[in-house]
Amino acid sequence: MPNPIRVTVWSEFRHEKHNPRVQAVYPDGMHTVIAAALRQQGFETRTATLDEPEHGLTTDVLAQTDVLTWWGHLAHREVDDAIVERVHQRVLNGMGLIVLHSAHLSKIFMRLMGTGCNLKWREANDRERLWVVAPGHPITEGLGEYIELEREEMYGELFDIPQPDHLVFVSWFSGGEVFRSGCCYQRGQGKIFYFRPGHETYPTYHNPEVQRVIANAARWAAPVQTAPRAFGNRKPLETLPAETAS
Amino acid sequence: MPNPIRVTVWSEFRHEKHNPRVQAVYPDGMHTVIAAALRQQGFETRTATLDEPEHGLTTDVLAQTDVLTWWGHLAHREVDDAIVERVHQRVLNGMGLIVLHSAHLSKIFMRLMGTGCNLKWREANDRERLWVVAPGHPITEGLGEYIELEREEMYGELFDIPQPDHLVFVSWFSGGEVFRSGCCYQRGQGKIFYFRPGHETYPTYHNPEVQRVIANAARWAAPVQTAPRAFGNRKPLETLPAETAS
Amino acid sequence: MPNPIRVTVWSEFRHEKHNPRVQAVYPDGMHTVIAAALRQQGFETRTATLDEPEHGLTTDVLAQTDVLTWWGHLAHREVDDAIVERVHQRVLNGMGLIVLHSAHLSKIFMRLMGTGCNLKWREANDRERLWVVAPGHPITEGLGEYIELEREEMYGELFDIPQPDHLVFVSWFSGGEVFRSGCCYQRGQGKIFYFRPGHETYPTYHNPEVQRVIANAARWAAPVQTAPRAFGNRKPLETLPAETAS
Amino acid sequence: MPNPIRVTVWSEFRHEKHNPRVQAVYPDGMHTVIAAALRQQGFETRTATLDEPEHGLTTDVLAQTDVLTWWGHLAHREVDDAIVERVHQRVLNGMGLIVLHSAHLSKIFMRLMGTGCNLKWREANDRERLWVVAPGHPITEGLGEYIELEREEMYGELFDIPQPDHLVFVSWFSGGEVFRSGCCYQRGQGKIFYFRPGHETYPTYHNPEVQRVIANAARWAAPVQTAPRAFGNRKPLETLPAETAS
Repeated sequence: MPNPIRVTVWSEFRHEKHNPRVQAVYPDGMHTVIAAALRQQGFETRTATLDEPEHGLTTDVLAQTDVLTWWGHLAHREVDDAIVERVHQRVLNGMGLIVLHSAHLSKIFMRLMGTGCNLKWREANDRERLWVVAPGHPITEGLGEYIELEREEMYGELFDIPQPDHLVFVSWFSGGEVFRSGCCYQRGQGKIFYFRPGHETYPTYHNPEVQRVIANAARWAAPVQTAPRAFGNRKPLETLPAETAS
Repeated sequence: MPNPIRVTVWSEFRHEKHNPRVQAVYPDGMHTVIAAALRQQGFETRTATLDEPEHGLTTDVLAQTDVLTWWGHLAHREVDDAIVERVHQRVLNGMGLIVLHSAHLSKIFMRLMGTGCNLKWREANDRERLWVVAPGHPITEGLGEYIELEREEMYGELFDIPQPDHLVFVSWFSGGEVFRSGCCYQRGQGKIFYFRPGHETYPTYHNPEVQRVIANAARWAAPVQTAPRAFGNRKPLETLPAETAS
Repeated sequence: MPNPIRVTVWSEFRHEKHNPRVQAVYPDGMHTVIAAALRQQGFETRTATLDEPEHGLTTDVLAQTDVLTWWGHLAHREVDDAIVERVHQRVLNGMGLIVLHSAHLSKIFMRLMGTGCNLKWREANDRERLWVVAPGHPITEGLGEYIELEREEMYGELFDIPQPDHLVFVSWFSGGEVFRSGCCYQRGQGKIFYFRPGHETYPTYHNPEVQRVIANAARWAAPVQTAPRAFGNRKPLETLPAETAS
Repeated sequence: MPNPIRVTVWSEFRHEKHNPRVQAVYPDGMHTVIAAALRQQGFETRTATLDEPEHGLTTDVLAQTDVLTWWGHLAHREVDDAIVERVHQRVLNGMGLIVLHSAHLSKIFMRLMGTGCNLKWREANDRERLWVVAPGHPITEGLGEYIELEREEMYGELFDIPQPDHLVFVSWFSGGEVFRSGCCYQRGQGKIFYFRPGHETYPTYHNPEVQRVIANAARWAAPVQTAPRAFGNRKPLETLPAETAS
């Protein structure tokens, strides 16, 4: 992989404009923190946000994006269906997608999963411990046995998703719940990673281990050059017996 | 399972009205053949077709349906989005769904899969041999090593689907292609089985082995009584440490 | 399924003979408690234990066993390799296997998994909450959102197993760990379910919800009648072109 | 990945010594052809064969091996159980393993799979077409829609393996069979790829596309640096309630 992987960090970028508690943690938006961390790891990064034209996700931008990260919460419904369709097609054609925290209810994730994608939640400063259950998976590179986050929002099962192709993290919460918090999927030629942490009032995306997971996931999800998916009417590759060829 | 499983056999029912070759094979529609075969196996069956009001899939009908089978081809776009949404929710809440042949491009299957669901095809009287690759799976009960269909439409890879939870059949075609022709999925509480054979100009649904697979699949896909999926805000199940409870 | 499913409940049956704390909970051995619970659910049950000739698992007994449950702890090494081989072949030929608690290190489970099957553990009266993560799976029939066990031994990740075909339960422990505590596999024609709870000093197998899971698993794991697995040299099913047939 | 991946190419190396037809294709053994192809792709390669002391797989050699490829056929039983155990442990600790063709019945593959690993076969110059069913998977990089091998031994289903984590290739054979011919697994921290082609009398390992698959698989299977798997007795990470801590 001689050229740097190109990551577009997408974020709703609304909480940070209106909520002082969030501003205190992410004064320039959480996307800038994520993008800076990835840049430091050698990725070529840009950002895009909801209120830009076409949400910053023009055909050109997507064509130059190897991996897209997505954070949204309040305004999932404001994302234009045509842009969702565009991102969906890009994923099926090979672009990686990293879905962060409350983006479990984003249109693009729900479209790709085909399920309700809902879950249980609680904002009560739970402690979260993300246990690695698939050591040896590329997304776990450089991690220890678990990642501990002193305070986070709780997400609990049932998480209404298809069973992941690979389950990488399972979270423990102090209030008594568990959660499948790192989930890998392939859809079409694209790889998708759902990663749970990242409530806007906590400094989660400043955490070096969380940053490492996102960087690992971006490397894992980068497109692989293969023949394009091809469909439709086809002539036989073998001679059909005379009596059966119509 | 004391009561009979209730199956609704849905079909587009258009080819049979207009195409004499199809009429010759399925004079009363292929849904009547499928429903009769299931009835003989002890299922309680009804049928529903595209041109009925609400496509025959009222809220009441779906509430009384344990497993829905779906065949469509020409008129996928005519299926009302509101009915697709209704069926989708029923599947997530536990109803089984058996997706037949050209219904790979039905709205409901594409919605549940999240992928393009396209494939290669050819109408040239190919011979098809469906090899069992998961003996011991309930859907293979009573089968031999393979099912052979003397003439069928070819469907070839790439089949643009999520990797199945369980792959049950792989087809060989005389023209040189292979196809993942029996695919199991769970989405929400519902089980989904895609089964490839069934082009309208061949007597495939009269084949006893094909009928057996559909019956096995209906038994496998019947709902299991569990707690309803529950989501939303939750109080902790454990006492959170005083300093962390906000 | 007209005839009752025949379950053989196998147990090491050593702790119960020597340890008064265990005797207090299972005076006649835990296998008798498990077998009685299954009998009440309509299964035809028998028991077998380590110190019987051939560990109670003669060729005849296995031939008449649809599903075998296995509990062992102290004496895994005393299980004869020839019996392990016999059970292994029976599983591959369709017998179901339910592996309980400390049997994660039994020879038969390790043989079937191909991994180390080790884990973390602690005997400290942890509270365990087994969350259902696959509602709609037959093993979850009749359960609520979770099973709570007031006191149990802790088993923690990393659990060194192949990723399950289906993950049904994830456990939360009060000491801070999680565990994949209900895991489904198919090997050959046999279905295998690993179920975590059941430390010998706790009354876990008296718990009606635990009993229900074992009964559900026995129904799920019962053999399916299919063509026997067949291997070896085969003539072509199609006429090979003259120039390539050697 | 700054340093080259170190691959040890292991082969039985018997056919090539005794069978003139095989000598004609692989005068220096098939391992030399595979190793040369990998070297050209930038891997650091060495070879090891059955008749070397410790089969060439000393503790030192394995410690310096990132990925091991394995071809065997006639002499699976001559492989020393202690060496199999050593390789098994290395795989669980992260070494990649690429299992080629008739090595489906090697001790190490059977140990890792836990199943019988048997299949159907025929030596009759069948044509084989390996269809890519997982485009976007790293092992498919640079491939087209399929690989065609003009003449090969047939391997047919049922292939008695655990369902792969990812199924990458499905083969079509001219005699009427199909086969899951590219299968990915993770066991412990190690990645395993089974790749079907490579009968000793055909020039399969001279084929550039086959070489590319093996190289792609070696990159995919290279170890990932994570915390070592850790097991055993553990203190709680949270304060257990006073009344429950024993």
